[in-house]
Amino acid sequence: MKNILILGAGRTATALVEYLLKYSAEEDWFITLGDFSLEAAEQKIAGHSRGKAIQFDIYNEAQRAEEISKADIVISFLLPGMHIFSARECLKYKTHLVTASYVSPQMAELNKDAASSGLIFLCEMGLDPGIDHMDLMRLVTKIKKNNGKLFSVKSYCGGLVSPESDDNPWGYKFTWSPLNVVLAGQGIARYKTKGEVKVVPYRRLFLNTETIGVPGYGVFEAYPNRDSIPYLKKFGLEDIPNFYRATLRRPGFTEAWHALVTIGLTDNSYSIPDSDSLTYRDWVKSYLPKTNGRASVQDIAVFLNLSSGNDIIKKIKYLNLLRDEKIKIPNATPAQILLSLLEEKWKFKSGDNDLVILQTEAEFESENKTKKMISSMTYKGEGNTHTAMTFTAGIPAAIGAKLILQNKIKERGVIIPSTPDIYEPALKELESCGIVFKEEEIG
Amino acid sequence: MKNILILGAGRTATALVEYLLKYSAEEDWFITLGDFSLEAAEQKIAGHSRGKAIQFDIYNEAQRAEEISKADIVISFLLPGMHIFSARECLKYKTHLVTASYVSPQMAELNKDAASSGLIFLCEMGLDPGIDHMDLMRLVTKIKKNNGKLFSVKSYCGGLVSPESDDNPWGYKFTWSPLNVVLAGQGIARYKTKGEVKVVPYRRLFLNTETIGVPGYGVFEAYPNRDSIPYLKKFGLEDIPNFYRATLRRPGFTEAWHALVTIGLTDNSYSIPDSDSLTYRDWVKSYLPKTNGRASVQDIAVFLNLSSGNDIIKKIKYLNLLRDEKIKIPNATPAQILLSLLEEKWKFKSGDNDLVILQTEAEFESENKTKKMISSMTYKGEGNTHTAMTFTAGIPAAIGAKLILQNKIKERGVIIPSTPDIYEPALKELESCGIVFKEEEIG
Repeated sequence: MKNILILGAGRTATALVEYLLKYSAEEDWFITLGDFSLEAAEQKIAGHSRGKAIQFDIYNEAQRAEEISKADIVISFLLPGMHIFSARECLKYKTHLVTASYVSPQMAELNKDAASSGLIFLCEMGLDPGIDHMDLMRLVTKIKKNNGKLFSVKSYCGGLVSPESDDNPWGYKFTWSPLNVVLAGQGIARYKTKGEVKVVPYRRLFLNTETIGVPGYGVFEAYPNRDSIPYLKKFGLEDIPNFYRATLRRPGFTEAWHALVTIGLTDNSYSIPDSDSLTYRDWVKSYLPKTNGRASVQDIAVFLNLSSGNDIIKKIKYLNLLRDEKIKIPNATPAQILLSLLEEKWKFKSGDNDLVILQTEAEFESENKTKKMISSMTYKGEGNTHTAMTFTAGIPAAIGAKLILQNKIKERGVIIPSTPDIYEPALKELESCGIVFKEEEIG
Repeated sequence: MKNILILGAGRTATALVEYLLKYSAEEDWFITLGDFSLEAAEQKIAGHSRGKAIQFDIYNEAQRAEEISKADIVISFLLPGMHIFSARECLKYKTHLVTASYVSPQMAELNKDAASSGLIFLCEMGLDPGIDHMDLMRLVTKIKKNNGKLFSVKSYCGGLVSPESDDNPWGYKFTWSPLNVVLAGQGIARYKTKGEVKVVPYRRLFLNTETIGVPGYGVFEAYPNRDSIPYLKKFGLEDIPNFYRATLRRPGFTEAWHALVTIGLTDNSYSIPDSDSLTYRDWVKSYLPKTNGRASVQDIAVFLNLSSGNDIIKKIKYLNLLRDEKIKIPNATPAQILLSLLEEKWKFKSGDNDLVILQTEAEFESENKTKKMISSMTYKGEGNTHTAMTFTAGIPAAIGAKLILQNKIKERGVIIPSTPDIYEPALKELESCGIVFKEEEIG
């Protein structure tokens, strides 16, 4: 019997736990699910005979060592910054590891040691990062095999709200970590265009958009998603002149978000010492250089040099930024204050459905013709628990664990799903779970 | 005999150590100077009979406890982030503490414990923060005593290069921590104007300037210095409609620095994974949205929408940003890369002299007239060791220690020099050291 230790029983782990429990008898697995809240873990295990819920604290060294030493594989679905604690323990007790998060610099440092210990630390095995890498590598490999000369690869992904639940002017609701949405883009954003590497500072990020069409869902805007450049080497695309990973939003979202950035409301680099003595109106007003008395939406429009009927101003009005309610968070950053408003206004409500969109576009030359291939996946969630986000982020990690336990992965060390021994069986399995890509060739 | 422990024997401690050694016999002090480099500490003690140099590591718990337990007072001139380690030890061994740095949130938390232990943790006892607070409180108190109704208080300070050593188009050289200069303004910047609190996001900070004249030195530009708002309460100025602490630069500096901010070169929030594989030219080019082939200064001018003869472009040309030399720092932030260029171009050279300028301006109503008082201090350094910066930052801390050891300070806890028992004797002593304010009344 193989012991699987899952750390983290948050909403994101729903599909992951369900999948693993479903295959536990067939594969002879025993699943231990640890969470700081025993109740949360118990709810997900739901009395399954091959599962056990435990109260787990990642910062408790003794418990971390005890639980990880008993496991054949650890799946860390805790906050990204916590994976490294699991990883170091996994190295000590010779245990494989799976995460759905980006490889952090600290995690990357463990590559050599993990490899020499014969261990697999499979990271970026979620939706984005995860399925996006797999579909991209599948498409790119196929084009190369057919002697296509690639000159552009672009990968787009968005966690959005399904059209029938889309009832606010932003076309957006929180279907994933709200804080991460507010902080999106605060860090390095790079891509390659016309053979040149371009960095986009945060200040310009949400102005730097492309528009794409998604079959059946219409038009979306895309803005650069983090640092695409390190993937050129990982994907064997060093010589490609155009390469871009991007995040999708409904049209109009990015320009309105850019307005909030311009005012200064998304900043997370400093705290406001007296934040809990201010109203939201005081707070927003303090960012507007010229106001007289009580700030109004008109003052925001003047500052942004927009007419008051502008779509951006309509979106800002919807947020009701200028409320006379006290901010309840002491010593808050602007991002935290904004988040407290957005959590109400962008709430993913009971009965709402979410939508995941992933699209890979590759342009290449073949037989002296320019061609384009588009591979698209859309997945609709069902309600608040079985969301498309938790499903598409959790199932890949579960499949990754299965492939490792079945000895189907050759590579060792800190890896991402860019090799065919991972992405071929994983994409096939994802398809059987309903995560299906449609391919279209143009030109 | 009283034991004084000075931590940190860097350039900033020069005047501090000299002052304390000078008074050591008269006051019956023994001075221990600890630094990670024993040699640096030995050079400053220079065999003085009432001094001792030791090798000191703030992160060595045992040594920290041993040395601090023996001291009557600790003066921490280490990096700002290190003071808290000394402070916690001082609390344990009932030792007073002096620093020339801003009160950090962690330091502020110790206020109650320090006060109830009868200890003085005197912070912000340098130049800025330090002398600026003292001159401001002196001036404000005087005006209030004469029944003046204050409506504006502004405090300006700059560490600059002396006119005879000012030989580059920026009018600036590094006379203080270069990294802090590059990062200046990255954090909260707030002040009060016309009764309203205003925040200035970093993106707009260097456009948000005032101009002031300094007798004998001409015109300077000022930009907001950190968060002025908490000082309103500390200075008893809660009701004043205009309050502003600012940093001085030569005219033209801020608009050119703003250009570097706009390009994205001062960012310290992310690292560039492949920085050491790039040339400086590659790096700058990656921030310019549209370039064809090799980037030129003309591309920068186009991006900034400036003519190539513009003063900003002249300053940028001087920095020689577009050099084909490899960046030697791995995994560097943009700020670190820019710093590596500026350290060469803004080098405070052998034979150069620096200049400190501090000016307090108070406007008030008195006998139905609007009046203004300006209090100015300028101090010129002599060469690279006895700089105005190290002198004006070090002497206040030394005086603070003297006042504490002479039992002249009443308040206990984490304090700043805003009370007359501190600023009156300290300003008098500063004057005898050559740090002299001139007062002028207008209107």
